Amino acid sequence: MKIKGLAMLGIGKIGWIEKEAPECGPLDALVRPTVVAPCSSDIHTVWEGAIGERSDMFLGHEAIGEVMQVGELVKDFKKGDKVIIPAITPDWGSINAQRGFAQHSGEALGGWKFSNFKDGCFAELFHVNEADANLALLPDDIDPVSAVMLTDMTTTGMHAAELAEVKLGDTVCVIGIGPVGLNAVAGANLMGASHIYAVGSRPICAKVAKEYGATEVINYKEGDIVEQVLARTNGLGVNRVLIAGGNVDTFGQAISMLKPGGAIGSVNYLGSGEFVKIPRVEWVVGMGHKKINAGLTPGGRNRMEKLATLVQTGKYDPGKLITHRFEGFEKMEEALLLMKDKPSNLIKPVVVINW
Amino acid sequence: MKIKGLAMLGIGKIGWIEKEAPECGPLDALVRPTVVAPCSSDIHTVWEGAIGERSDMFLGHEAIGEVMQVGELVKDFKKGDKVIIPAITPDWGSINAQRGFAQHSGEALGGWKFSNFKDGCFAELFHVNEADANLALLPDDIDPVSAVMLTDMTTTGMHAAELAEVKLGDTVCVIGIGPVGLNAVAGANLMGASHIYAVGSRPICAKVAKEYGATEVINYKEGDIVEQVLARTNGLGVNRVLIAGGNVDTFGQAISMLKPGGAIGSVNYLGSGEFVKIPRVEWVVGMGHKKINAGLTPGGRNRMEKLATLVQTGKYDPGKLITHRFEGFEKMEEALLLMKDKPSNLIKPVVVINW
Amino acid sequence: MKIKGLAMLGIGKIGWIEKEAPECGPLDALVRPTVVAPCSSDIHTVWEGAIGERSDMFLGHEAIGEVMQVGELVKDFKKGDKVIIPAITPDWGSINAQRGFAQHSGEALGGWKFSNFKDGCFAELFHVNEADANLALLPDDIDPVSAVMLTDMTTTGMHAAELAEVKLGDTVCVIGIGPVGLNAVAGANLMGASHIYAVGSRPICAKVAKEYGATEVINYKEGDIVEQVLARTNGLGVNRVLIAGGNVDTFGQAISMLKPGGAIGSVNYLGSGEFVKIPRVEWVVGMGHKKINAGLTPGGRNRMEKLATLVQTGKYDPGKLITHRFEGFEKMEEALLLMKDKPSNLIKPVVVINW
Amino acid sequence: MKIKGLAMLGIGKIGWIEKEAPECGPLDALVRPTVVAPCSSDIHTVWEGAIGERSDMFLGHEAIGEVMQVGELVKDFKKGDKVIIPAITPDWGSINAQRGFAQHSGEALGGWKFSNFKDGCFAELFHVNEADANLALLPDDIDPVSAVMLTDMTTTGMHAAELAEVKLGDTVCVIGIGPVGLNAVAGANLMGASHIYAVGSRPICAKVAKEYGATEVINYKEGDIVEQVLARTNGLGVNRVLIAGGNVDTFGQAISMLKPGGAIGSVNYLGSGEFVKIPRVEWVVGMGHKKINAGLTPGGRNRMEKLATLVQTGKYDPGKLITHRFEGFEKMEEALLLMKDKPSNLIKPVVVINW
Repeated sequence: MKIKGLAMLGIGKIGWIEKEAPECGPLDALVRPTVVAPCSSDIHTVWEGAIGERSDMFLGHEAIGEVMQVGELVKDFKKGDKVIIPAITPDWGSINAQRGFAQHSGEALGGWKFSNFKDGCFAELFHVNEADANLALLPDDIDPVSAVMLTDMTTTGMHAAELAEVKLGDTVCVIGIGPVGLNAVAGANLMGASHIYAVGSRPICAKVAKEYGATEVINYKEGDIVEQVLARTNGLGVNRVLIAGGNVDTFGQAISMLKPGGAIGSVNYLGSGEFVKIPRVEWVVGMGHKKINAGLTPGGRNRMEKLATLVQTGKYDPGKLITHRFEGFEKMEEALLLMKDKPSNLIKPVVVINW
Repeated sequence: MKIKGLAMLGIGKIGWIEKEAPECGPLDALVRPTVVAPCSSDIHTVWEGAIGERSDMFLGHEAIGEVMQVGELVKDFKKGDKVIIPAITPDWGSINAQRGFAQHSGEALGGWKFSNFKDGCFAELFHVNEADANLALLPDDIDPVSAVMLTDMTTTGMHAAELAEVKLGDTVCVIGIGPVGLNAVAGANLMGASHIYAVGSRPICAKVAKEYGATEVINYKEGDIVEQVLARTNGLGVNRVLIAGGNVDTFGQAISMLKPGGAIGSVNYLGSGEFVKIPRVEWVVGMGHKKINAGLTPGGRNRMEKLATLVQTGKYDPGKLITHRFEGFEKMEEALLLMKDKPSNLIKPVVVINW
Repeated sequence: MKIKGLAMLGIGKIGWIEKEAPECGPLDALVRPTVVAPCSSDIHTVWEGAIGERSDMFLGHEAIGEVMQVGELVKDFKKGDKVIIPAITPDWGSINAQRGFAQHSGEALGGWKFSNFKDGCFAELFHVNEADANLALLPDDIDPVSAVMLTDMTTTGMHAAELAEVKLGDTVCVIGIGPVGLNAVAGANLMGASHIYAVGSRPICAKVAKEYGATEVINYKEGDIVEQVLARTNGLGVNRVLIAGGNVDTFGQAISMLKPGGAIGSVNYLGSGEFVKIPRVEWVVGMGHKKINAGLTPGGRNRMEKLATLVQTGKYDPGKLITHRFEGFEKMEEALLLMKDKPSNLIKPVVVINW
Repeated sequence: MKIKGLAMLGIGKIGWIEKEAPECGPLDALVRPTVVAPCSSDIHTVWEGAIGERSDMFLGHEAIGEVMQVGELVKDFKKGDKVIIPAITPDWGSINAQRGFAQHSGEALGGWKFSNFKDGCFAELFHVNEADANLALLPDDIDPVSAVMLTDMTTTGMHAAELAEVKLGDTVCVIGIGPVGLNAVAGANLMGASHIYAVGSRPICAKVAKEYGATEVINYKEGDIVEQVLARTNGLGVNRVLIAGGNVDTFGQAISMLKPGGAIGSVNYLGSGEFVKIPRVEWVVGMGHKKINAGLTPGGRNRMEKLATLVQTGKYDPGKLITHRFEGFEKMEEALLLMKDKPSNLIKPVVVINW
């Protein structure tokens, strides 16, 4: 069987192609997407060549879908089930998973398969490894359009707060308030932060940042952000800095606004630059207990189920992130190009597919 | 100089007495209370003799006040400062403080001094050890009447959530929704819980529990609470159980509704009973990784400052706990007796003193 | 194909039986044991009926073996490989494994399959689920006879030290110095304990306890162990208590010798008694931060590989545990009965099988 | 009263001077050194100006001594007591101490007072703040000459292992095997590491490294250390890298030899260089969960008491570090200059003073 989808043809080039449908191993599932969203990593992958050359690979790793087929060893899912498919689908038996780092199963980042080294969800059908462990049932009381945010934006953003080990009453700075950074704000807020300084400039993002718990939005266009944060904290700095934007130089700012004993939690994909440069003096000549934690979000079923409960109980609303909605499979291309253009009123587009 | 105050005269007996004013050591402060609240532990202490015999000891350990005198080594506070005085005022240099357990400075529970082994705050003046470390400035933007809740109710209740290690998306049961339990609810919610089942029966408490983040109130009068919780969790139980009420037998219920790998966080003062009984089978014959954590709240300045930021940023409102307000120093007695009587519309009374 | 083995026929009864050989699923392996050891849980299971009725179930869960067959999805193992098979073989994709508790995959204790709810290794052939995740290659430089200890005794005993969170310079008491308790001693020592008080009485065990790092052996026959420990610690008690023996009442002793802020780590299978009773006063009326952690050992490949490196580097010698050695498949019965009789010179018997 | 001592006169210049004896506040002690050791930070301070200009400041922060006077609030020490004085003497009531970072009391590194911003121990008498919290009795069964290592070398080196969160069976690389690095080796070994690759070149250090638990010494003169480590670990790298030597560029090597999910623990004082440069690709584009932890050792009484128990129980021998021994107060200068010259047979010199 042939399936159609939107693919990266090579660096800088996308197009609609047909490929042989994936096969379903005994532990696997084949899923048809019903809601998808393009991600800025798709943009990095195609137009910046961030992960190197790829040809004829279906893009996309954020999807809600319907199970079309399951392997003979799959127990908990069946054809017709409506499911959340996390962007990160680990090999759960791997050594790194046993070590507690399933997202690095096989090798570093090995849990990130879709549109990385395997066909993604911008296709009529896509393959999910270890279905029982990597699919989550979409609860009836969650809007599938909102739910697609959980697969990557929510889990990635909130992981920044986890990496920074946010504690009750902590003062936090979040650098970057695109869709991931907004979820870093939400994560810090959900984990008990008091003051949350969100660094960004676009009004639409600033608005959602405040709705997600930011107590103040700091505009980097109005002055050095380190100085702005220190001015608000009696020169003491913050307990945690979450990095969800910027580049390799952002870490220097983060270190400079951090208290001794504080921590950075970064989920930013660093696409370029040879070094992340940690300023020696501000890092207290290597003796200040300013932790630097950075990593790919966890994935898998349990993660999705837990995040879904935050939506079900009304404690977190992923729908706020969605600024643009498209209808129809073929609109994937338009949505992706919108993501590439990044107009000032965009947080996140979704594409709803009615089969 | 003589000072007047409301004292425990002996087990079962309170009265107004005069005593010599405390002396102010070089690190200490003398404080005049401006808002105080009675605590159910005052009731245990006096009418149940829970900590043994005491005579002519001023009661009370929840106060906002004004600094009247400081020792010559005190740097950060001066006469006239409006301050929050935590119920727990550790000796910060002690070995147990260095081990990370300042609340047990000197000996187990040694950080709990007021109305335990030292005169409390139901007096015209009271003594605070290590003033720089155990006082916190009352921020201008916090109502002192609300702030008195931080000194014990807030910090104790939220410590239950800390002890249980509540994580993003956890399902939590809170047993007991008196003023401490309500703060356990608030703490669980602030730390990222999704479903929070609050066990209690009084409508006034149920109302505040929901405002603090409980998703459902379970009435123990309507059936076994273990069964009620299991029914709501597909028989799987919850990730965390916070204990802020009940007695030694409550732990058996908590264990029975806990998932393997879950944790109990208890802050309940267990006043009677020879044993806390952990049911062997439900505890998975000792092999289920159901952690049991129980302890006295941390105290001191940093703790109060951090909790205050939650109020300042609007993320937590301690004022919801206050159902009864008295005016005047001499009303301490009436407030205490109200606490003893515990009418159904009571959460917490306060006494405001205008000198 | 029929295979022969030593089975539990019913409570109180063992015998040699033949059964149909297990089938090998796509992820699985079939293994022929080359070294096995009986475990005291086999004794509990058969003669105390600790896990309830079982009929015609092959016993045994400690084995070194040779891979005879692998499923078609197995990548890292092949026929002929010499392997360590952990007693605990989790389902790594399960929700509980994703939560960090693989030993409870499926349900509490669900990772413990052999001779619990599945045929064990006292047979000509046995089945291993998720072979890539649950087998470990036996390194050439490790004696297979010693290595069989890693599968359960080592990992279980050391888990007690992990559960108790032993830190550099901690003072530790280990209650019980059978083969698991001796490994608790070794674990505490490897994790940095200074004083290690090992509670036991048999000379052979006392000798190995000292070789494994115990600084003193306390004989419970010479007086109350709580008093003996307090006498050695200026009445302060210890930082950690590891429980690897005794019964439900042992926890009371452990709590009584623990400092505030200390922790119990228990790996004891509690076979009888309705309640584990925590003494209220010694538990500091529920406010002393005396943690109670208890759980089944982790299992799986990574665990075995890591423990094996301790042997390879000469930092831990499991061979010290082996006091009795049998040769021949049929000697399993004699070895098991020896374990049942528990003569005073026994720590652990092994059976070496030459096919 | 005037006291004499060896002082930094200015950058690049030392000399013997007389100063007014320090005063003893109510919480303090005055101590006469009986054993001291120079530290390479004294060298950095004087000859590299690492902490800036200082004039007429007594050097030295590693000492065993005798209490000559205590303040009126000191309870646990008296004139004549033999004591261990940690290099780090925090203000225990400070906010940062309450946050768990006493070494940063007051400000970052504020717990490091001696020969930093306060007169050190190379004098006839020196001042110790908060004596009850910052002195430890020297146990009778510990050699005072060995014990002086505990004050800085031991605690600092072992903190590297703590920062890297070494776990049972971890494979560890220690970069730098001067006296601090050797203790990092000992710390990793005491915390349960299996393979320990110690990077260094001097035979005397290599010998002690092996005695302290290193399984192999890697000589950086024999090739790139990253390649040497990867070659020994099947290209997978190590779980932990402890940095106790090198410079700002050492972190790049450490990151390159670290597994995803691993951690760096650094205690190196970074004296020069603008940036610590983290290689972006080897840091897995910021998504590999390679933690970077770096900080000043904890200090204070409890730390010294716990380390002393490791010596008392024979689990750690600080005496192995001492290669040169001088007798007499005036030999401080010679010992310091020896530290400056760093001959190939030097690990650590001590000066024993007989008053």
